[in-house]
Amino acid sequence: MTNTQILPGATIGIIGGGQLGRMMAIAARRLGYGIIGLDPDDTGPLAQVADFHIAAGYDDLAAAEQLANSCDIITLEFENIPAETLAHLESRITVAPGPEVLATCRHRLTEKTFLNDNGFPVTQFAAARSEDELRTAIETIGLPVIVKTVEFGYDGKGQVRIDDIESITAAWQQLGDVLCIVEKVVTFEREASVICQRNADGDISVFPTFENDHRNHILDITRMPARLPAITRKAARELAHNIAEKLQVIGTICVELFISESPNGRTLIVNELAPRPHNSGHITIDACVTCQFEQHIRAICNLPFGDTTPTRGGGAMVNLLSDEWENGEPHWAGALASHGDVKLHLYGKAEAKVGRKMGHINCSAADPDAAARSAIAARLALQDRPE
Amino acid sequence: MTNTQILPGATIGIIGGGQLGRMMAIAARRLGYGIIGLDPDDTGPLAQVADFHIAAGYDDLAAAEQLANSCDIITLEFENIPAETLAHLESRITVAPGPEVLATCRHRLTEKTFLNDNGFPVTQFAAARSEDELRTAIETIGLPVIVKTVEFGYDGKGQVRIDDIESITAAWQQLGDVLCIVEKVVTFEREASVICQRNADGDISVFPTFENDHRNHILDITRMPARLPAITRKAARELAHNIAEKLQVIGTICVELFISESPNGRTLIVNELAPRPHNSGHITIDACVTCQFEQHIRAICNLPFGDTTPTRGGGAMVNLLSDEWENGEPHWAGALASHGDVKLHLYGKAEAKVGRKMGHINCSAADPDAAARSAIAARLALQDRPE
Repeated sequence: MTNTQILPGATIGIIGGGQLGRMMAIAARRLGYGIIGLDPDDTGPLAQVADFHIAAGYDDLAAAEQLANSCDIITLEFENIPAETLAHLESRITVAPGPEVLATCRHRLTEKTFLNDNGFPVTQFAAARSEDELRTAIETIGLPVIVKTVEFGYDGKGQVRIDDIESITAAWQQLGDVLCIVEKVVTFEREASVICQRNADGDISVFPTFENDHRNHILDITRMPARLPAITRKAARELAHNIAEKLQVIGTICVELFISESPNGRTLIVNELAPRPHNSGHITIDACVTCQFEQHIRAICNLPFGDTTPTRGGGAMVNLLSDEWENGEPHWAGALASHGDVKLHLYGKAEAKVGRKMGHINCSAADPDAAARSAIAARLALQDRPE
Repeated sequence: MTNTQILPGATIGIIGGGQLGRMMAIAARRLGYGIIGLDPDDTGPLAQVADFHIAAGYDDLAAAEQLANSCDIITLEFENIPAETLAHLESRITVAPGPEVLATCRHRLTEKTFLNDNGFPVTQFAAARSEDELRTAIETIGLPVIVKTVEFGYDGKGQVRIDDIESITAAWQQLGDVLCIVEKVVTFEREASVICQRNADGDISVFPTFENDHRNHILDITRMPARLPAITRKAARELAHNIAEKLQVIGTICVELFISESPNGRTLIVNELAPRPHNSGHITIDACVTCQFEQHIRAICNLPFGDTTPTRGGGAMVNLLSDEWENGEPHWAGALASHGDVKLHLYGKAEAKVGRKMGHINCSAADPDAAARSAIAARLALQDRPE
């Protein structure tokens, strides 16, 4: 018994107009789907490639209604859609991932509680609604901790690390006196992520492990597969598979992990979940048989999954943030000339605002280190402008 | 000394609104270019993915002017643009490939003469402006011959094979009493093609050889690399490289070849040229480090080329013509389920008109035969609909 399939020729609605939406759309195009976007900015990365774009806020129910009337299914490129909008859409059309998954993942306390209650490994954590509760939590957990607002956090936004008792008051004020989650700091050897897709038939596809280096809390370099023993990579992929199954997600789930060395081998700790294609999976566009965006489209449309094997063995991605533009237009030709494997991806963003993700460079190779050397060299070449 | 580069962020105009334009546009998008299309049909494959589409005929000079004013460079997805339009555009903006290359390639007699005059191997040929001239040509060349109109021929259109003297009058009338080229029929072992790109700096990139099987004069299956000895594949790639250089093309040239066995090894005969990405190169999207469409964009923008190596060793493509729709919508899920390597590409065409190219399926594998088995099985699965 197969659940409903949304077949090529149908139209997919995407809420959120950034690069994730754009890359979803490009993958969907190739499969023959139409695309309608909804986002306040009608010149953004997705709007440029959509058949039609609805320029409206995410809380605009009339716009949501228009989207529902124009599409066969709706997906999202980020999780912070107002609950009222989601409820309205859900009453009219299938939204994948569904509101339950989004509710779990967009709230850090709900997410950690879901993971902990289902036996998935997380760091010690507690809720704090006030500075007093924060102090109590720290007494139980012990310093250092990271305190995070439960909503609207990404790329290190809405979080503060506390190393000593004296910093508590300032930290609490900085976070804005709102509900927070207090987490014991995890000492880790590496950060990794695993991206899974699950469709309505319950099929689950798992990508190879990604090893992630961050700079200023923003993803900087991803290597695929992660440079970890095979047994650890297998455990990470199984863990992500089991989370996707338990969540009953339809679409994508990215499981971000801390990997620690311990006397008994490596320990995996789930840091957070993202119910959508993820920056760490961009390397799959050029280095896997099927990329995360196509796999996401197959998932929401309830189609069979493609192979996720790396075509050449490994790959690496480097992010291009707006600081590459600080001294003028980057030297694109230099980056492309640096190695034949360099694949440049730019998101069509007009302004290089500070900290903005403008694009990325992918390289594939037999192993992740060789690919990373090429990708890093290509990024360096962007600043090596001709006289 | 580097010639002008058209850098990411610039806008590329594409004349012609079909699948070649669509796939050029998708490749250009990834690199961060904007896209404006010009084609009479504003719902076609390219229009769906362009930033802006100018719905006008190719002879509409006002539309051409509008395109020239909106773009940084113009390219074409097919060669039959009226000379007057090209001349107008060329006076305003760079058109790649340029009018000389297009003039050579869109006229079969000019093309064969160019090849012959420059020492590239072609079959014996002659011009015929009348039935009498046709008879004279046949006396010189000997039967069988293929007679082709010199313009507007593709996929076997505008050509007739003559095996006996009695058929000459009927053939001439069928061709419409227009200038024709008379060609000696080549007995061949295999048909192959080689796709090259050349940029304004004179860099040339050559893809691996493609081996092409046709059905009813339309490309059916492409295997990459061609199943030919390495020395023959090398000779084919060198031949194509030399043609690209002699033509001074900026953009893409596809060299279609007949490969014959002879006592002294294999003989290569150039059948025809196409000054644009070519159906036989669609496999490069999923099976080479850089695909023909991205390489075309790099060529016209005068950027360094990417590597053209097959990522896994080989690949195969099968075309999806409208006859797959004869018994209703093809069974997409069946094709995708048949093998994890199946990559489906649909062009967004609304109507499955007879003989129309609607999409293709790519598979990559260690060798072209393994890939072809998967691609053919996937296409068969399209007709194996569930009860």
